[in-house]
Amino acid sequence: MSNRKYSIGVDFGTESGRAVLVDVADGREVASEVFPYTHGVIDEQLPLSGAKIELEPDWALQDPEDYLRTFQKTIPGVLKQSGVSPEDVIGIGIDFTACTMLPTKLDGTPLCLVPEFRRNPHAWVKLWKHHAAQPEADRINDTARKMNQPWLDRYGGKISSEWFFSKVLQILDEAPEVYAAADRMIEAADWVVWQLTGIETRNSCTAGYKAIWSKKTGFPEKAYFGALDPRLADVVETKMSRNILPVGQKAGGLTEQAASWTGLKTGTAVAIANVDAHVAVPAATVTQTGQMVMIMGTSICHMVLGDEEHIVPGMCGYVEDGIIPGFFGYEAGQSCVGDHFAWFVENCVPAAYQKEAAQQGKDIHQLLEEKASRLKPGESGLVALDWWNGNRSVLVDVDLTGLLIGATLATKAEEIYRALIEATAYGTRVIVETFEKNGVPIRELVACGGLPEKNPLLMQIYSDVTGKPIKVSASNQTPALGSAMFGAVAAGRKAGGYDDIFEAARQMAHLKDNVYRPIADHQVIYDELFAEYLQLHDFFGRGGNDVMKRLKKLRARQREADVLVV
Amino acid sequence: MSNRKYSIGVDFGTESGRAVLVDVADGREVASEVFPYTHGVIDEQLPLSGAKIELEPDWALQDPEDYLRTFQKTIPGVLKQSGVSPEDVIGIGIDFTACTMLPTKLDGTPLCLVPEFRRNPHAWVKLWKHHAAQPEADRINDTARKMNQPWLDRYGGKISSEWFFSKVLQILDEAPEVYAAADRMIEAADWVVWQLTGIETRNSCTAGYKAIWSKKTGFPEKAYFGALDPRLADVVETKMSRNILPVGQKAGGLTEQAASWTGLKTGTAVAIANVDAHVAVPAATVTQTGQMVMIMGTSICHMVLGDEEHIVPGMCGYVEDGIIPGFFGYEAGQSCVGDHFAWFVENCVPAAYQKEAAQQGKDIHQLLEEKASRLKPGESGLVALDWWNGNRSVLVDVDLTGLLIGATLATKAEEIYRALIEATAYGTRVIVETFEKNGVPIRELVACGGLPEKNPLLMQIYSDVTGKPIKVSASNQTPALGSAMFGAVAAGRKAGGYDDIFEAARQMAHLKDNVYRPIADHQVIYDELFAEYLQLHDFFGRGGNDVMKRLKKLRARQREADVLVV
Repeated sequence: MSNRKYSIGVDFGTESGRAVLVDVADGREVASEVFPYTHGVIDEQLPLSGAKIELEPDWALQDPEDYLRTFQKTIPGVLKQSGVSPEDVIGIGIDFTACTMLPTKLDGTPLCLVPEFRRNPHAWVKLWKHHAAQPEADRINDTARKMNQPWLDRYGGKISSEWFFSKVLQILDEAPEVYAAADRMIEAADWVVWQLTGIETRNSCTAGYKAIWSKKTGFPEKAYFGALDPRLADVVETKMSRNILPVGQKAGGLTEQAASWTGLKTGTAVAIANVDAHVAVPAATVTQTGQMVMIMGTSICHMVLGDEEHIVPGMCGYVEDGIIPGFFGYEAGQSCVGDHFAWFVENCVPAAYQKEAAQQGKDIHQLLEEKASRLKPGESGLVALDWWNGNRSVLVDVDLTGLLIGATLATKAEEIYRALIEATAYGTRVIVETFEKNGVPIRELVACGGLPEKNPLLMQIYSDVTGKPIKVSASNQTPALGSAMFGAVAAGRKAGGYDDIFEAARQMAHLKDNVYRPIADHQVIYDELFAEYLQLHDFFGRGGNDVMKRLKKLRARQREADVLVV
Repeated sequence: MSNRKYSIGVDFGTESGRAVLVDVADGREVASEVFPYTHGVIDEQLPLSGAKIELEPDWALQDPEDYLRTFQKTIPGVLKQSGVSPEDVIGIGIDFTACTMLPTKLDGTPLCLVPEFRRNPHAWVKLWKHHAAQPEADRINDTARKMNQPWLDRYGGKISSEWFFSKVLQILDEAPEVYAAADRMIEAADWVVWQLTGIETRNSCTAGYKAIWSKKTGFPEKAYFGALDPRLADVVETKMSRNILPVGQKAGGLTEQAASWTGLKTGTAVAIANVDAHVAVPAATVTQTGQMVMIMGTSICHMVLGDEEHIVPGMCGYVEDGIIPGFFGYEAGQSCVGDHFAWFVENCVPAAYQKEAAQQGKDIHQLLEEKASRLKPGESGLVALDWWNGNRSVLVDVDLTGLLIGATLATKAEEIYRALIEATAYGTRVIVETFEKNGVPIRELVACGGLPEKNPLLMQIYSDVTGKPIKVSASNQTPALGSAMFGAVAAGRKAGGYDDIFEAARQMAHLKDNVYRPIADHQVIYDELFAEYLQLHDFFGRGGNDVMKRLKKLRARQREADVLVV
């Protein structure tokens, strides 16, 4: 046992789980270990020997045993790597993708591990990107509008097919026997904490953002659930728990079994579960109002803390205590950012550029960034609408599609690449301005995730376009760091941790020295270009011409015809 | 001397000249020979040894001696290849790019061959795509509108910077000494005929389409030219000729000198000069109303014959006797067709496709066409506006730019490729419908040029989109064939030729057997998509949102700033 104390954060991603062992004193990341899930994302057939159970399109499942394997592989791994004694590990926190959920028995046994249900896909974990519950989401929204449900406004007027009750209702619709056999419907985040502690808890973050819960009014009323389906009327009483704990609390201590899985001490403090994007906020040093955290990867999550409750149109949701206790946590998002550039590189970059990159020993993204850096704002003559994957905020419309305007015979790949970056920056500016107009002030931006380090041009453009300074998290694994911070808070000051997340963030979270600041010359041009973007955004996004939706419908019709022919 | 008689057509293109020796009886193309111009397109500096005279941006000149070299190289070439005796060659016709013009002395000597003016770029031939006379074109149009000039309507309301008086006025503005020294300002088409025959003639085609002449009212009035510049008031009297001859007439016979250049007999009949696109019409069998000829290459020229005079908004112009004597010849155009696909292949097709094409031993266009053929109409979910190089007809606006709408993360290169083809087809349909709405009926389309043979998918799409059958010219060098037909008419029936172009077309012009016909299932979908195109076309092209023009201006501003910095 040494003077130094450590905490472990475990970040459950889409393809793998990652543990990071962190020094509680200063947040130094001492060791990290990744476990790629044995069965990854299950989207074709169930991983069963001797039975071929195929999945329909848009399904995405996981194996709950992969989560336990993550604990068993990564925690012993970081202990071994670091040489840290289990005595000195004071707490564990976890964060998860969401809404990722599963049906279980009363003791927590996943239904997919019960032989009777093993071959039923509805008994497995439904991953966040399981998109087959759209009809149920439509029903949830229609019924809510008809019954004038007050909570609908908190979610930008629309509940997503990815969220908790869409998935529960799909189970009820398509596998009523699974629904009936399930004693619990639970977020995987809460389920893994249950497995560690032996205690069933529910966290305020997923409950608020994904399961229509609020601190003031709880879940939707029984009459509403009954209107969706009479069998669903008592879903909260019979399948869930009204006992929602705010993030930052302790869920319990490690059971003997969990201690044996991990090599940690029995009773080690475990924090209430959390969500990857949300736990990144304090890890990016943000525990106050006025700063917007952008978690920038394939998509962007925008997280803001507010003192007051405001209805901000078109965001993903806001939850009291949802990110940091004592604040309203607002969440918005853009569904196509890193994915956009990946699509462009795969589908639109000519062979000559690939060759040039190879000759110079560069990544193609790097070459494009260099070429695009040499352009001035406005020099490409291009403006794009960044809707290649629909628009999450502020239009909340998955049926919108991409638009590129201004191309000529002189247009080069790097010009289109830059226009796509700019388009995503305009999208962020729309979100920032919508927050500001609705009473949630934003003074500066704090970025984390994979993109900021890879693409300084993009960061500068975001600063030029929004007119805000952008700071960057020092950690490149903010979710795991954030979870470790919550682990240290669960342990508490007496055990060598902290009494609250504010103190933990002050000590353990850091920013890079380099700050991106708007360049005045660029801002002037980008103001002009943003005005063009906004005009197109409102025209195509708010009903001026619904051509995108009509084209998408026609496309679906013609693809369907294809399938019928085949 | 044999029973068979032959005619030679010489087609002066942008980079080279081509002679084709044709059997007068049936139009069989017996031999052809190409001469790449020694100095090609002169757009950087004058081809002078010992002097470096650089050209400004947008300039494009040619060397008139390259035209004489074309006669000297290609006509002896086809005679040799074919073994045909000069005795049996009864006529020559020529066609040229237009407006390609030059200043000369009274005897036809180009000013650029006069030592005093050799270093003055304005003394050289201005090629059709010399685009530096835009300020002069603007003045021509402004003054015409102010003076309410009736001829403006014949040209879709706008005179192009490429046309005759824009170029003449630029010479006067920038090199008044060249203007003063020029006894003649003349189309290169007429100049080469002058060199062959020793007689100065002017053809009704270039006069009408490029120099604001009409059979009924002649050139614009003196007062108008005087308003542009007092020194220009007597331009027609002093620098031109009011003696305009309709196409189909004989200009004269070969001089002894021209006979020695070509190896033909002195006195061989030479036809009045013509323009490449226009001469292709009878070569594509069309000598009557109701058929639209599409000359399809980098761009499309649309040519229609009409019995009556109609103002059709947004076309390039119409000229009585301009294509076929006795008809009004209407011309419209799309400025970006083959160029569009070339741009796409060069700038947007991923390396993987280039690799796949190479592995299969295919041209990349061929691979894209195959992949695009497998898509159904509407299946891509994309619609484009084909304005990558502005819009010639019917909007007559070079400041419009390209638009692509409907892209998603699943969009593939072949889908964009097909969308661009479809966009050009919608553009043609707009032209067809504009003709029809304004009293010029179009029953069917006849295609010639490079594209129809290369891209059957494109031809089918044009038929599906327009709802018209499309026939294809049997010749793949229709301009040269057309010129040879006019050569046979210049020779006349007594010499073994024909008395008019109608008879010549019946005997010498042919179509392929294969006719593209609209597929009913496709037409229904394309009607839907065309409605979307038209809505976007009118919104962005007729002032709904002038974003394209604003972006283009900003682009120019930012590029200029670039130049200043450098």
